[in-house]
Amino acid sequence: MKQFLDEDFLLNYDVAKVLYDNYASKLPIIDYHCHVSPKEISENKSYSNITELWLGGDHYKWRAIRSCGVAEKYITGDASDYEKFKAYATIMPKLMGNPLYHWSHLELKRYFGYDGILNADTCDEVWNLCNQKLLSPKMRVKNIIKSSGVELLCTTDDPTDSLEYHKVIAEDKEFKTKVLPAWRPDKALKVDVKGYRSYIDLLKSVSGVDITDIKTLKDALIKRMDFFDEAGCKTADHGIDNYIPFALYKNEKQLDDIFKKAYETDGMTTPEEADTFKTAMLAFFGSEYVKRKWVMQIHYGVNRNPNTKFFAKIGPDTGFDVIDGNASSGVNLAKLLNFMYSDEALPRTVIYSINPNDNEIIGTIIGAFQNDSDGGMPRVMQGSAWWFNDNNTGMRAQMISLANLSAFGNFLGMLTDSRSFISYPRHEYFRRILCNLIGEWVENGEYPADIESIANIIMDICYNNTKNYFRF
Amino acid sequence: MKQFLDEDFLLNYDVAKVLYDNYASKLPIIDYHCHVSPKEISENKSYSNITELWLGGDHYKWRAIRSCGVAEKYITGDASDYEKFKAYATIMPKLMGNPLYHWSHLELKRYFGYDGILNADTCDEVWNLCNQKLLSPKMRVKNIIKSSGVELLCTTDDPTDSLEYHKVIAEDKEFKTKVLPAWRPDKALKVDVKGYRSYIDLLKSVSGVDITDIKTLKDALIKRMDFFDEAGCKTADHGIDNYIPFALYKNEKQLDDIFKKAYETDGMTTPEEADTFKTAMLAFFGSEYVKRKWVMQIHYGVNRNPNTKFFAKIGPDTGFDVIDGNASSGVNLAKLLNFMYSDEALPRTVIYSINPNDNEIIGTIIGAFQNDSDGGMPRVMQGSAWWFNDNNTGMRAQMISLANLSAFGNFLGMLTDSRSFISYPRHEYFRRILCNLIGEWVENGEYPADIESIANIIMDICYNNTKNYFRF
Amino acid sequence: MKQFLDEDFLLNYDVAKVLYDNYASKLPIIDYHCHVSPKEISENKSYSNITELWLGGDHYKWRAIRSCGVAEKYITGDASDYEKFKAYATIMPKLMGNPLYHWSHLELKRYFGYDGILNADTCDEVWNLCNQKLLSPKMRVKNIIKSSGVELLCTTDDPTDSLEYHKVIAEDKEFKTKVLPAWRPDKALKVDVKGYRSYIDLLKSVSGVDITDIKTLKDALIKRMDFFDEAGCKTADHGIDNYIPFALYKNEKQLDDIFKKAYETDGMTTPEEADTFKTAMLAFFGSEYVKRKWVMQIHYGVNRNPNTKFFAKIGPDTGFDVIDGNASSGVNLAKLLNFMYSDEALPRTVIYSINPNDNEIIGTIIGAFQNDSDGGMPRVMQGSAWWFNDNNTGMRAQMISLANLSAFGNFLGMLTDSRSFISYPRHEYFRRILCNLIGEWVENGEYPADIESIANIIMDICYNNTKNYFRF
Repeated sequence: MKQFLDEDFLLNYDVAKVLYDNYASKLPIIDYHCHVSPKEISENKSYSNITELWLGGDHYKWRAIRSCGVAEKYITGDASDYEKFKAYATIMPKLMGNPLYHWSHLELKRYFGYDGILNADTCDEVWNLCNQKLLSPKMRVKNIIKSSGVELLCTTDDPTDSLEYHKVIAEDKEFKTKVLPAWRPDKALKVDVKGYRSYIDLLKSVSGVDITDIKTLKDALIKRMDFFDEAGCKTADHGIDNYIPFALYKNEKQLDDIFKKAYETDGMTTPEEADTFKTAMLAFFGSEYVKRKWVMQIHYGVNRNPNTKFFAKIGPDTGFDVIDGNASSGVNLAKLLNFMYSDEALPRTVIYSINPNDNEIIGTIIGAFQNDSDGGMPRVMQGSAWWFNDNNTGMRAQMISLANLSAFGNFLGMLTDSRSFISYPRHEYFRRILCNLIGEWVENGEYPADIESIANIIMDICYNNTKNYFRF
Repeated sequence: MKQFLDEDFLLNYDVAKVLYDNYASKLPIIDYHCHVSPKEISENKSYSNITELWLGGDHYKWRAIRSCGVAEKYITGDASDYEKFKAYATIMPKLMGNPLYHWSHLELKRYFGYDGILNADTCDEVWNLCNQKLLSPKMRVKNIIKSSGVELLCTTDDPTDSLEYHKVIAEDKEFKTKVLPAWRPDKALKVDVKGYRSYIDLLKSVSGVDITDIKTLKDALIKRMDFFDEAGCKTADHGIDNYIPFALYKNEKQLDDIFKKAYETDGMTTPEEADTFKTAMLAFFGSEYVKRKWVMQIHYGVNRNPNTKFFAKIGPDTGFDVIDGNASSGVNLAKLLNFMYSDEALPRTVIYSINPNDNEIIGTIIGAFQNDSDGGMPRVMQGSAWWFNDNNTGMRAQMISLANLSAFGNFLGMLTDSRSFISYPRHEYFRRILCNLIGEWVENGEYPADIESIANIIMDICYNNTKNYFRF
Repeated sequence: MKQFLDEDFLLNYDVAKVLYDNYASKLPIIDYHCHVSPKEISENKSYSNITELWLGGDHYKWRAIRSCGVAEKYITGDASDYEKFKAYATIMPKLMGNPLYHWSHLELKRYFGYDGILNADTCDEVWNLCNQKLLSPKMRVKNIIKSSGVELLCTTDDPTDSLEYHKVIAEDKEFKTKVLPAWRPDKALKVDVKGYRSYIDLLKSVSGVDITDIKTLKDALIKRMDFFDEAGCKTADHGIDNYIPFALYKNEKQLDDIFKKAYETDGMTTPEEADTFKTAMLAFFGSEYVKRKWVMQIHYGVNRNPNTKFFAKIGPDTGFDVIDGNASSGVNLAKLLNFMYSDEALPRTVIYSINPNDNEIIGTIIGAFQNDSDGGMPRVMQGSAWWFNDNNTGMRAQMISLANLSAFGNFLGMLTDSRSFISYPRHEYFRRILCNLIGEWVENGEYPADIESIANIIMDICYNNTKNYFRF
């Protein structure tokens, strides 16, 4: 029997251990998609206690605690930080089989040197230990990032963002990790959501462009893309809720009308109008990313805020989002990529669905839009297992599907998608699972035991592919 | 090599064996959802032969025999009981990998002490042995239930049911197993199916309420819910065919109109009318269950009776139902739960889909409607792998998905959903698979080897959670 | 650690090795569905180099190379044969985990005696070795088929085909392998695709029937079915793109109108008209197959040619097709089979979906349309894992699903679906995976270790079931 979380954690084959120990574990991290705060990096934030660090904004953990019937008071409410930590510690044993169980213990081990098990009994011990350690400068944000081996990270930023903190961070020459902005223009597309008008007003003001129609909207966005580009931006992220839209517009006039209606009614367009607008704008963005050599990321399939009562109470991103399951995304994704491809508006693109049933559809669709126009790398990629799939079985399933359907050696590997500065062990988690999968293939005679050749693939997936594909 | 069905059946890790032998196997059974006949319990029915017991009403077995090209005569037709048994015995080897193969042999071993393999050669031996054993009082229904360790079971009953047999059973003080009714009001919702008028007439007569509109329909149902409640009912079950409906009604008048049309035309409402009516009534039922502290079970996704020729010949529940696959259920389920939740009409609720692709969608949706208002347990649960998924891989997949996405320690575990009095080994089957999964995690260092803590989780999943959640 | 591709490749249990070595490996191959050219068989074609044999028409390999960002020139373009081979050899290591990696090395080993690993370094060695071996008469098509142990194969042929090469092949008494035509009338159904008019004109001319309406269309097709039947045809294949259609026609007049519109407008019917026409014609074909005792194969769910730019450039079947993912097929399939069944127009039928998520839906639907009218075999079967699913995990998943939901002993086993004469190792691949799965069940005590009984099932799945079901 293996000890819990020992040095061979998740590595069940000798080859897997060699691959992890000698190669995967030694590589720096490029975290090309996350949601940490550039402000907190620039301020080199410190934490007064483990609750602030762990439970301040992590909706994965909130959801888990809520799923044990714990009162909201102890989750996002006015309970004390200690009480909130106690709530999480207490439910831990029930999270058997959940990636949070692994992540939390990995984080306790890697950042706080805690080797025990977190539960109601050890709650105080862990609380005291962590809070003690958090006093050290080692646990300030920049040092955490540094000690985690992060070479580069991309934050997620709205087109209206000033990117001022990115500049401040870049000026700190002692801090070697590159912190780049990533362009996330979701709000500019939400013609069917209240708040559109005020968002456009903000964009007007920030861009200095008087946005009155689709043409000037694009002008404003182009100005902001140029601004992001100058700040080192290499990638855009599109969070497409529910399903991939596809509805061809007849002409610019139609888009103008939809845009004006959305502005005037503050988001009261019909679903068909919204789909038409979004299709056009995604293609517009694609063509701009081609020009700038940015990578386009498309995340789809989330049903956001289905609990309207709690949404009214505590807002978005609080642990209530679910898988949507609409079945039209596969067909529409193929149409959208084709539309962009035909128009030379398909940049390097990474596709992620929150629905694990989409693995194979995506795995085949990417294969239809590869080509050689862009530096000898595949054009379209399937992203790593996302959000609810970011666990041992989900990551294995995504990797096996990708290997079955595409060329696994080109895989871009892991990103944290996290709001937390101590979530980098998710890269370790991924790398262990990757090495174990490949180790299994080798051990079973399904791939030749040529360690050097395998090591190259491991290093590509953990590091090189991302560096080359994003042109970091 | 392990012997077939030996004492370590399905237990492939030492820890798994300890967990099963010392904990899981020792717990009583709460079979909170089944379809056995309360009349047969009250009469303490005996069986003249193994065909009557095994093949009299088990549509799983009928489907399997039919799938081997056997004539219907030997399945539901007029062949002799011996011939029918012979048909099943003969196809057994072809059921390699099918749960029926395991269930049947477990039942032969546990109830008849038969250690061999059932096939054409051993058919007569088994036939004689079983029929001999069936003469014993030990094989009368009450003794079977008793020797199976069943502490409590819930039957499935129509609102118009007299529950007379439940009363008779309760009066037998020698028989310790609690037999409770469960409320299954499906027919009251089927405004789009022929037979609605006569069902409403029956409900009128049984309830003594003159049902003329939606208000009086609800009155009648409330009277019957009160009646069930007095009889000890703790749960309702909703079998929702095809897909989860969601269509908001404008006002009570609209519901009245749909109801009257359904009554007058005997089930000729449009799909939209039916969805509107069902949405409203599900929310009505939810609010009533909240009042009575009943657990609501929702089973969805079955395409019933797709073979109309055989349906005309031998009726429903004969082994012809299939998975529906409609993709709108995920989105509608979230909307329905939200509608109920916002209106304080969401009771403790257990969701099951017949489509295994829905595991992850359900696993995320339940997490959006947990809260703390109701005694420190999660409000919404995913039910165990249902019907076509009730096999080793299906149960593992459901448990792994639930563990990935929720708090596995709260899982409600197994139910038989069966018409047979000797199907309780399905609980054994489940418990072995559960212990093996957890044993695998522990053996691989994915969960700490703290047996006491794990044993608590095992006991919760096999027994305590159900007892507490349903308030048995 | 096992050597790559050693004699126990994919066989991880002792029982599995016994089953494969003593039984599965010894059986001849019936390749009941493939796309090899009867002309090339009749000519006993030889190959000038490995590129012609391997990369001349294999869109699996083209897709893989394209997925590594290689220029189209080296795939379907005007690069030399050596350069094309070099491109494939070079990307090989990246295909870790892809079935092509296994198939290619199995083919190199079985047909060329090459025991090494193909990559950029060994490219020339393999190129020279293979091209040398290709000079031998052993590597002419008929000898390849013979040495592969192929007892019978079915090509795929259009109703307008002359079947002349089948006759030539049959006349070669030295060549023992039966080469039968299979009827693939897809084009006759494509009332919604440009080219319909010219196809009907061709059918007119070949059949000698003046096709003016639905009646004469059927007459022409019947004449051709009779022609195929005389040539030994035993099976029809329907490639149904996107989703299974189901729309009932009102009367023959409606079908006439749709047909005439399709002819006159050359494929400009509406989706609803097309679905109506296809539903009617599938049922028509079914009734004709019943008369001729042909097996109907239905393949569905492919989104064809989604990349319109490349489609315009290099045409269909070039590695661009993807999984469609439309969710209506499950419901429609049940309706279609019911429509045919009710009308006595449901022949023996094999269902395949390209979407692995459909495994369980198909596994249940087949069970609703079995019956005893036709010689003691099940009427409807699920076909083996198709196209994108034709890999270790995909085949395992399909087999486990089928075993869970049906009677695995009736499974029809493998087909190559291939355009290549050296793809027969896919049968070896399948048989190894089959034996390993059954070996796993036996080793774990999930099926009794009665080797003789298991060997019968193996032999049925690998050979007998196909022979009996298709009446070869």
